[in-house]
Amino acid sequence: MHFVIIGGDAAGMSAASRARRQMPDLQITVFEKTSDVSYSACGMPYNIADPKRDIADLVVRPAQVFRDKQNINLLTGHEVRGIDIENKVVSGTAAGGKSFETAYDKLLIATGASPILPAVPGIDLPGVLALKSLADGRKIKTVLAQRAVKDVVIIGMGYIALEMCEALSARDIRVSMVKPRSRLLPWMPSQLSQVVRATLDDHHVGVYDGHTIEKIEPVNHQLRVVCTELSLTADMVIVATGVRPNSTLAARAGISLGAGGAIGVDAHLKTNIADVYAAGDCADAFHVVTDRKTWIPLALRANRAGWAVADNITGKQTSLQGVAGTAVFKLFELEVARTGLSETEAREAGYDAQSIVIKSRSRAHAHPGASNVWVQMIGDKETGRLLGTVMVGHEGVAHRINAAAVALHSRMSVARFSQTDLAYAPPFGPVWDPMLTAANQLLKKMPQTT
Amino acid sequence: MHFVIIGGDAAGMSAASRARRQMPDLQITVFEKTSDVSYSACGMPYNIADPKRDIADLVVRPAQVFRDKQNINLLTGHEVRGIDIENKVVSGTAAGGKSFETAYDKLLIATGASPILPAVPGIDLPGVLALKSLADGRKIKTVLAQRAVKDVVIIGMGYIALEMCEALSARDIRVSMVKPRSRLLPWMPSQLSQVVRATLDDHHVGVYDGHTIEKIEPVNHQLRVVCTELSLTADMVIVATGVRPNSTLAARAGISLGAGGAIGVDAHLKTNIADVYAAGDCADAFHVVTDRKTWIPLALRANRAGWAVADNITGKQTSLQGVAGTAVFKLFELEVARTGLSETEAREAGYDAQSIVIKSRSRAHAHPGASNVWVQMIGDKETGRLLGTVMVGHEGVAHRINAAAVALHSRMSVARFSQTDLAYAPPFGPVWDPMLTAANQLLKKMPQTT
Repeated sequence: MHFVIIGGDAAGMSAASRARRQMPDLQITVFEKTSDVSYSACGMPYNIADPKRDIADLVVRPAQVFRDKQNINLLTGHEVRGIDIENKVVSGTAAGGKSFETAYDKLLIATGASPILPAVPGIDLPGVLALKSLADGRKIKTVLAQRAVKDVVIIGMGYIALEMCEALSARDIRVSMVKPRSRLLPWMPSQLSQVVRATLDDHHVGVYDGHTIEKIEPVNHQLRVVCTELSLTADMVIVATGVRPNSTLAARAGISLGAGGAIGVDAHLKTNIADVYAAGDCADAFHVVTDRKTWIPLALRANRAGWAVADNITGKQTSLQGVAGTAVFKLFELEVARTGLSETEAREAGYDAQSIVIKSRSRAHAHPGASNVWVQMIGDKETGRLLGTVMVGHEGVAHRINAAAVALHSRMSVARFSQTDLAYAPPFGPVWDPMLTAANQLLKKMPQTT
Repeated sequence: MHFVIIGGDAAGMSAASRARRQMPDLQITVFEKTSDVSYSACGMPYNIADPKRDIADLVVRPAQVFRDKQNINLLTGHEVRGIDIENKVVSGTAAGGKSFETAYDKLLIATGASPILPAVPGIDLPGVLALKSLADGRKIKTVLAQRAVKDVVIIGMGYIALEMCEALSARDIRVSMVKPRSRLLPWMPSQLSQVVRATLDDHHVGVYDGHTIEKIEPVNHQLRVVCTELSLTADMVIVATGVRPNSTLAARAGISLGAGGAIGVDAHLKTNIADVYAAGDCADAFHVVTDRKTWIPLALRANRAGWAVADNITGKQTSLQGVAGTAVFKLFELEVARTGLSETEAREAGYDAQSIVIKSRSRAHAHPGASNVWVQMIGDKETGRLLGTVMVGHEGVAHRINAAAVALHSRMSVARFSQTDLAYAPPFGPVWDPMLTAANQLLKKMPQTT
């Protein structure tokens, strides 16, 4: 049996490795269009922050190890350009321009996602850089090493933009962030996003929301980002305005797309075409709260989906429950986390959403070093179910969110969650964990349920 | 209606306050035999660690506030000595020796727990101190302030003993710990308890397990703890060998006892006697894993039970799901946490327990500052259910355990838990959180379930 994988990052290489472990005589071919495989994309901002670290540190397992130790035919510099689902053949072009063609028995599409670049003049100027692939990270690091970069403008204010903002500040670079929408992190309530904004202010980051980018133009040896009623000059411009799934190749082959324009898959990661699977950032997933399809491109679910595909093609039936959209990021001394639906998402999904925001403490009453923790908790008034949680604080937020994530997987009610036996010791939280205080307060606003 | 509460700490005062909020015209009387109410007992080691902090900092709400702001008839220095369940009357003796007697409509017994003192000669010598009540903490602090205490022997090696060990070390006191059993923290696998022991060694704490204490005797101005094949001399001896529920008063009144000699209560905190409730360290509870009664005296469940009693007597029906036995403590730079059953407890409860121990990292591949995290996970081979988790590490352990705690409340299988969408960002963990790695590894040793 020949297992062909398009894309050699998280989902693709997870699938390849696991398939090999489970079926030693399987023929496995991976086509990766870049020269990089199996790296920690999420680690790039932290690597960029440190001039002494090599970007190659982020490679989890070098290509040669997959080839030599796992007998995986890993072909980098190979771009697949067509999938013939009738004849079960993929074809494409190798780095030197040579074309290739291979028959498959089972196919995994793991083509990932690409940055969305705003369609403005100057977006293709040198010094305007996105951050998605390891090549992007390498390019940014090279520029930072070669030139005196004192000012950077970041277009976008999402996770990656904010992480890059911290990374560049660590290198004593002045950072300005700009975006068209007028709300920072619109999925959080304003009481929480104000905490994020205050942290950016404390670190002298320029935050310019509500400014549409009109063009980017070269000015002397710098770049000028021209917006409505604003113009920012920088030595480098980083574009972090989100990503889109790389699903065109699949769509052209006749494979159905699902949520967010990603490849539609079932709980077994199967597409609508026999023997064709999709996993990772290019594929959609079920949301454990809504049971509907969603597209949330994050690392854990890519790895998990890769494993599940390997299971399913090697004979072990694995179906995935879905994602809760749990995410966390660090912004200077702040931890920001979420799981489940935001209040807006809950309303859009048709829930009778009720939310509460509470401010609690990271450690016990009278324990030194305590800081504030803000929690937004969202429940469904009709069924009493917990729908989502957003949290911001200086400590203990990143892992605290997981309790709510597990509750979402269990379809727990807010009432039941409020009764969970969470850990307590004075250095780590109040007797009533901030999550429990949020649940207790939310319950007061909801009809009594159990 | 007259609501009488015996005991003015966590459970008692939580019940009093909540009952007042929910029923403004309720007559509420609290009898507390000591002079202290509503303090954070768990905060005592941290308070003792700092000579500059007053022990009174641990009082969450002073007695006068309950009296003046909440119209609660809070009588300190009042020891209840008898409960007449026929006539619904409690009686006792006040501080000055005067006796009192009061009729109740609803009674809450919240008498807490008391330290178990080993029955050895010298246990009552001055300088041999337990740590349970605020008075105990005050006594220890007074001795530390008045005398040059250079050496302390702690009898016992549980949570409180270990927290005290850190607290005294912070005051440059040499600490030795001694206990009869030969295993440190016997509920954890040896791979994890070795990490705890190594931390104690690093901090030059003498750990003498497997030594039965024969007597304590005064030697010059010091105390000598004489054990089998060992003799330790100290300026102070702290006894932290566990606690027992204060249930004698209830038992004498004809109220049935349950698990661990604690007062037996149902999910509504009712005893076997009409209109008599019990809550906190003196009462038992259901365990969410076994559904059987258990006695695990911890702060959160005491507060929660107090609230539930207030609900139930003021007309809002509240039943408690039970406890998972989630607990955490800090030992120098180490965080130690558990939830659910230990492997031994699981076997004793009749489960076909399978466990795994894994070592993972606290942060992502290549992220600076990562340290080891050890996880033991225990599952039931018959049903596939998660039964318990024990964790040790330098960061992220205290809150990580909560994900497993919520899973226990949901009766999740290890397979389902392994699919939960936990938060990932490089500063906070690997892509596969240590808990997920543990679940994935445990699954390999269990029959396939979902």
